[in-house]
Amino acid sequence: MRPLGTHFLLDVAGAPFATLDDPILVETLLVDAVKAMGANVLGIHIHRLSPQGVSGVVVISESHLTIHTWPERGEAAVDLFTCGDPARARLAVHALAQALGAQKATVEERVRGVRAR
Amino acid sequence: MRPLGTHFLLDVAGAPFATLDDPILVETLLVDAVKAMGANVLGIHIHRLSPQGVSGVVVISESHLTIHTWPERGEAAVDLFTCGDPARARLAVHALAQALGAQKATVEERVRGVRAR
Repeated sequence: MRPLGTHFLLDVAGAPFATLDDPILVETLLVDAVKAMGANVLGIHIHRLSPQGVSGVVVISESHLTIHTWPERGEAAVDLFTCGDPARARLAVHALAQALGAQKATVEERVRGVRAR
Repeated sequence: MRPLGTHFLLDVAGAPFATLDDPILVETLLVDAVKAMGANVLGIHIHRLSPQGVSGVVVISESHLTIHTWPERGEAAVDLFTCGDPARARLAVHALAQALGAQKATVEERVRGVRAR
């Protein structure tokens, strides 16, 4: 049976404080990533945390893209769950890591679904 | 250095069509899970897909809980990312699997952050 979808777990480090603490820029980068996948945004929520940091969620049909940033550590955790083309999503994830200015990035790819394991 | 947070990847199978296709019920179960963790909902978005299925995202401070359901397969994929107490989150995830009526469930737990790996 085919899997439910593909899930990319991206962790980045060494990114600039200013980038990770800018909710407008983070939102733009998330929307760019969704567009790069050829997907449509159904809803988007960006929260600026206190004293710093951004949490963002983009809802895509049967998919989502989320980010949580820790500017003081230069780190962020990104999740992309997609039922679409994994190849395009993979490219979008790597482009997002670069756009965030990450010096180091790790990407894990998981096939989702009980029967897929 | 301490990790950014803990990420639970829950995949369920054998759940009732009616449960997985009910956006109101799914929303209630997600909110119950957040409450069980002692966390607060910052925002919530539930979409009913056509011809069936529900996509839901709950934004919690520096955390999120998402679900995508495939009622026709009896399956769902749930993600809980939390910076809070992993023990409470773990209990909430298992309770959510039960509340969804899953006959089979797999939970993976990942520590997030480049330096945590």
